[in-house]
Amino acid sequence: MSHQVTIKDIARELGVSPSTVSRALKDHPDISETTKKLVKELVEKLKYTPNAIALSLRSQKTNVISVIVPQLVHHFFSSVISGIEDVAQNAGYNVMIFQSSEIYEREVAITQALQSNRAEGVLVSVSKTSRNFGHFKELMDNDFPIVFFDRVVDALETDKVIVDDFSGALNAVEYLIKTGCKRIAHFAAPQHLLIGYQRQRGYISALEKNGIKLDDNLIMKCDTIEEAIELTPKFMKQKNPPDAIFAVNDMTAAGAVNTLKKLGYKIPDDVSVIGFTDGLISTVTDPPLTTISQHGFEIGRKSAELLLKRIDNPDESFKPVTEVIKTELILRGTTREMESR
Amino acid sequence: MSHQVTIKDIARELGVSPSTVSRALKDHPDISETTKKLVKELVEKLKYTPNAIALSLRSQKTNVISVIVPQLVHHFFSSVISGIEDVAQNAGYNVMIFQSSEIYEREVAITQALQSNRAEGVLVSVSKTSRNFGHFKELMDNDFPIVFFDRVVDALETDKVIVDDFSGALNAVEYLIKTGCKRIAHFAAPQHLLIGYQRQRGYISALEKNGIKLDDNLIMKCDTIEEAIELTPKFMKQKNPPDAIFAVNDMTAAGAVNTLKKLGYKIPDDVSVIGFTDGLISTVTDPPLTTISQHGFEIGRKSAELLLKRIDNPDESFKPVTEVIKTELILRGTTREMESR
Repeated sequence: MSHQVTIKDIARELGVSPSTVSRALKDHPDISETTKKLVKELVEKLKYTPNAIALSLRSQKTNVISVIVPQLVHHFFSSVISGIEDVAQNAGYNVMIFQSSEIYEREVAITQALQSNRAEGVLVSVSKTSRNFGHFKELMDNDFPIVFFDRVVDALETDKVIVDDFSGALNAVEYLIKTGCKRIAHFAAPQHLLIGYQRQRGYISALEKNGIKLDDNLIMKCDTIEEAIELTPKFMKQKNPPDAIFAVNDMTAAGAVNTLKKLGYKIPDDVSVIGFTDGLISTVTDPPLTTISQHGFEIGRKSAELLLKRIDNPDESFKPVTEVIKTELILRGTTREMESR
Repeated sequence: MSHQVTIKDIARELGVSPSTVSRALKDHPDISETTKKLVKELVEKLKYTPNAIALSLRSQKTNVISVIVPQLVHHFFSSVISGIEDVAQNAGYNVMIFQSSEIYEREVAITQALQSNRAEGVLVSVSKTSRNFGHFKELMDNDFPIVFFDRVVDALETDKVIVDDFSGALNAVEYLIKTGCKRIAHFAAPQHLLIGYQRQRGYISALEKNGIKLDDNLIMKCDTIEEAIELTPKFMKQKNPPDAIFAVNDMTAAGAVNTLKKLGYKIPDDVSVIGFTDGLISTVTDPPLTTISQHGFEIGRKSAELLLKRIDNPDESFKPVTEVIKTELILRGTTREMESR
């Protein structure tokens, strides 16, 4: 990609804010004639044409917002989308959804298509394979409203809605400790993913808080049902096997539950299991799964509210906010009861 | 909605085909000057302006196609979308997804937004609550390429990709009969839905083919996990309870499996269960669920291929085709083995 001249470039050159440039181009009454003249001259000099088209398109109300999610097959993301649609539809917006399939190149292609598809803003949960965020930066430089949710980009100054993964994991593991579990394993997601990192951090903190020594043999990268089916038997063959598993998501927890039963363990008497998500899966396993609800619908609602606020006030530059949605431990059949200890 | 003048209206008035009108407006060399003149005069007379905009937009390659699905939370639809994306991406297209949430009014709003969102064509699976299809007719009248999949509209002459629900159900029920089941129940979807109707028809045909008398007490409208949990106990209390359940989808089957186990029945020894979909659910139940795979990915691929063919050949009018994707019985743990009888 060759570098296109953006509103940010013009702002930097003139020593004003991007929003001033944007407003100057729209002939906003708050901007002085001198500034408008300076901006317009520089725009001409830098051949700032692509944006002119983008601007004229953007100023049209299309009543469409976009969402980019990594995988539609995850119940969490379809819940978030339902929450987004709930707010968007009440405000008269259609919601246009794109799937990055966890592929960086696709995410880039989608962000490039966004402006010509005439969306007025976008809600994004980032792909696992994206380590580079220039494509989002470019949208921001063009004053295109973005809100990140769940998998956010720390380095970018936008509105964000995040799940309190750390506290969710901490509460879950503390519950296991309170119901008598002594050797708690963690089936973890890759640590470069913020959710993988935060959930593992919550696990470790719960152990520390309760004076339990961290045992590296009890942590393993295992975040799919296939891995759980393959790795659970190896895990249980250890000299000192775990009496509880805290899994980073529900599918992995379900794989652990079914494999443990096949190996002859009683759940929750011999081994307790907790998942993370509270999707359809959790009501279908036997016993039904104790898990952490992420309140996807609420995350979607909150994200859409933040985005619509930006869209409705394009000329105001409020400070980006980060909203934290609390998780909730949903007790079902794969954990013991508090009273029984 | 007031009636907008469409290409179809002009074609009818002049006694030519809509594709001739469309080509005349695009100044296609195959169309005579006389016809072009007639078309253009009528267009002016009828104030056929909205389409002029639509046409000019449509003639731009945006490399975007749209998909409208009823519910993203269903594994089947997310599989179809992955198949669509597989084909679309290879051809350089982005896929823009909309969710109707089974609400007719939303489906109408989405189809209205499609043209201004500059998609080059659309793939649709119809909402449960749509009994009226004027919104799709309007797109067709404007030469906007449409392919229906799974839940199709019989009355509209477009390309369609359908699942062989009838044979899928028939094979499943015949398998139950061959493994010794004598009283097979059917948990059915509403019969105004083509899939509900076809699956029930397959169930009935299998019984007839095998000389088993149809018993109305063994068919019940029950197509959600909640209904299965509520209705299975009532069902089993009958004087002559079933020894097998064929459920219209996997979630309902999962609800039946868990409820039967709670009631003390052994699966599959006392009661066999078969679902329909082969989603994530089916590997997570205990025992894992015998079910019918609909090959969603393949349906998506085939639908996208048909749509891209239409998009690439806008001026040719080939006869609409209907492709049938075969289902497949996936044997897991909720049915008995053939050999054991």
